[in-house]
Amino acid sequence: MKKPLILVSNDDGITANGIKLLVELMKELGEVIVIAPDSPQSGMGHAITVGNTLRLSESHIFDGVKAYQCSGTPADCVKMGKGFALKDRKPDLVVSGINHGSNTSISVIYSGTMSAALEGAIEDIPSIGFSVCDHNMEADFSHIVNHLLKIVTQVLKTGLPKGVALNVNFPAKGKEPIKGIKICRQTRAKWQEEFDRRVDPTGRQYFWLTGNFINQDKGEDIDEWAIANNYTSVVPVSFDLTAYHAISTLNKEWDI
Amino acid sequence: MKKPLILVSNDDGITANGIKLLVELMKELGEVIVIAPDSPQSGMGHAITVGNTLRLSESHIFDGVKAYQCSGTPADCVKMGKGFALKDRKPDLVVSGINHGSNTSISVIYSGTMSAALEGAIEDIPSIGFSVCDHNMEADFSHIVNHLLKIVTQVLKTGLPKGVALNVNFPAKGKEPIKGIKICRQTRAKWQEEFDRRVDPTGRQYFWLTGNFINQDKGEDIDEWAIANNYTSVVPVSFDLTAYHAISTLNKEWDI
Repeated sequence: MKKPLILVSNDDGITANGIKLLVELMKELGEVIVIAPDSPQSGMGHAITVGNTLRLSESHIFDGVKAYQCSGTPADCVKMGKGFALKDRKPDLVVSGINHGSNTSISVIYSGTMSAALEGAIEDIPSIGFSVCDHNMEADFSHIVNHLLKIVTQVLKTGLPKGVALNVNFPAKGKEPIKGIKICRQTRAKWQEEFDRRVDPTGRQYFWLTGNFINQDKGEDIDEWAIANNYTSVVPVSFDLTAYHAISTLNKEWDI
Repeated sequence: MKKPLILVSNDDGITANGIKLLVELMKELGEVIVIAPDSPQSGMGHAITVGNTLRLSESHIFDGVKAYQCSGTPADCVKMGKGFALKDRKPDLVVSGINHGSNTSISVIYSGTMSAALEGAIEDIPSIGFSVCDHNMEADFSHIVNHLLKIVTQVLKTGLPKGVALNVNFPAKGKEPIKGIKICRQTRAKWQEEFDRRVDPTGRQYFWLTGNFINQDKGEDIDEWAIANNYTSVVPVSFDLTAYHAISTLNKEWDI
């Protein structure tokens, strides 16, 4: 059987430990090509580079793996893979991560990791974003290896529904092994921002965006419940943002 | 009756003609506060500024309107409005735009204009992004005024379903007036990227992202159909990316 072609990207940048582990794992399953940002791109959401130029250059940091570093966002990386680096070859799978930090709940919309996966889905390629709920760049990810390989193997076997990518979050390493894998919905929660105001050496004010995560969603079918209870969460996500249920409401209510 | 508090932002930057017109129109309907990027932020998707600092300073470019320019993204602007500039006051409405260029179909996911509106919806504030399908920064927007005011007045009156923002696109100015307003779904289409490769004066390659819009969606309930037929399109959009229909599929198919 022909080895699947697997495109790997991330948002922590090409030198992060998370992508290093992901590349090692994907080498066991297929032919790997890496196109990842040359610097950290956390919080970039689905940004793309318009009105500015892009750089792409070969990188040799992964043994025996063709790799490129790109000056753009994670979404740019997947676009450059498709439109330039891979030329006529379409990947069988796009994987993004492994992100150092959670991308559960509303964070999916701010996530560079997930934008690479969604960009793959837009191209009709089965695509998965992986995150570990631990922001430490040196965190031990060994506890997730079995689940990650299980999920990728499953997706390579059965594909994914059209227009759907997967947002996979793993709990941080604890005393117990992860209990299992749960298919979840996105938690209805949000960030309560606070702005840490400071003054620079010239006397001008500047701000750091900080905040607390506020979850009032009590469901047990949500990604936050899965993580809090030491399960791996898998949320199928869509790039079609249409709120279909609202179409009939607006048609009824509006006097247009 | 108390005047509604209307927060205005955009992604073309605080000096663009589109936001100038939007501010003028909103002044007729309520108390206006502007928080907009200090430079163009097109294509920024739902990016936020993490790992870097933010600047916010007062601007006096709108007569009689409290305004701030922000160094961050459109989503940052709404966050700073809520978390800093407005302190304890919650806007009754967030409006974003008027964008110079289309945000129909898949472009909604790359759109800075729409990220400001979605950020408002995350905060449970009725929110609308406005775009005109004309990239010219000097384009005449006079033909959209009636529809824009009609939509804002409707939303101020009846609100919006929970978790839903509106993505409003107007056709470019033509010979005929716009025919009407259609509630639509997001067109299932995508961009076929091309990378224009060039060489800089030092001999290193760089790229411009370009591309063509490929629409194979033949529906007449889509935003692209509305625009092509000289209607204003209104797509209700959600920040919950969960592909609910895929949850049962995965639970059935997966052997986990």
